[in-house]
Amino acid sequence: VSTTAASVSSCDLCRTDGGEVLWRDDFCRVVLVGDPDYPAFCRVIVHAHVREMTDLEAAERMRLMQVVFAVEAALRQVLAPDKVNLASLGNVVPHLHWHVIPRFDNDRHFPAPIWAAPARASGVAPTLDRTRFRELLVARL
Amino acid sequence: VSTTAASVSSCDLCRTDGGEVLWRDDFCRVVLVGDPDYPAFCRVIVHAHVREMTDLEAAERMRLMQVVFAVEAALRQVLAPDKVNLASLGNVVPHLHWHVIPRFDNDRHFPAPIWAAPARASGVAPTLDRTRFRELLVARL
Repeated sequence: VSTTAASVSSCDLCRTDGGEVLWRDDFCRVVLVGDPDYPAFCRVIVHAHVREMTDLEAAERMRLMQVVFAVEAALRQVLAPDKVNLASLGNVVPHLHWHVIPRFDNDRHFPAPIWAAPARASGVAPTLDRTRFRELLVARL
Repeated sequence: VSTTAASVSSCDLCRTDGGEVLWRDDFCRVVLVGDPDYPAFCRVIVHAHVREMTDLEAAERMRLMQVVFAVEAALRQVLAPDKVNLASLGNVVPHLHWHVIPRFDNDRHFPAPIWAAPARASGVAPTLDRTRFRELLVARL
């Protein structure tokens, strides 16, 4: 893992939580991103400034994916989305984080990825019951 | 897992390999997508018509991720990309598949995701030594 003091001090995911923290342990955290088009858009963020999945130990990789899948499962339970999108990109912020995005066929970009041009001027955003979602998530972790 | 005869017969990833197959076992396959902007863009595709990661058994999920990470590791070994992008979206083709995309800071969309508007008219695409990549990949699987 190549981590320099400079990269850490300028990294948004080192300096801030990156959203409303729903759950955390000593390895990673689950946050709500706060995207108005996607109010249930979550991120799973490793605390350490690590770049790629294959920079983690195998056991850490699997632990991180278990958290990602717990978020997916809890989101499916509360929202029953048409599809779940999972992505680890990090081109702008090369600090390992997973996007977990419940998608609906009437949301702003569907069926395109949320990073593409919008498919419609405004999409229908689901209402997330945060309390229930957090309970379901924590029960899986 | 909800699989109907209709969804299977109309699904591109049920009817075709979805690219040049580099490796396969009885559960999944690794293909080269053949994108001219991203010649090393790979997909890991589950053979079964499954929708979400959490529709798989936990052991299958971890097996699939091990293949995804083997592709990432082999791509890093041959190309040393600036970043690797991993994504399971499936809004258009809801048949479980992972995109594994080595990214370079002079490629067509960097630092945006490849699904966003291009950042430049034409990007620099890396030359992939397929023989060496396949050897490195198979050695990890």
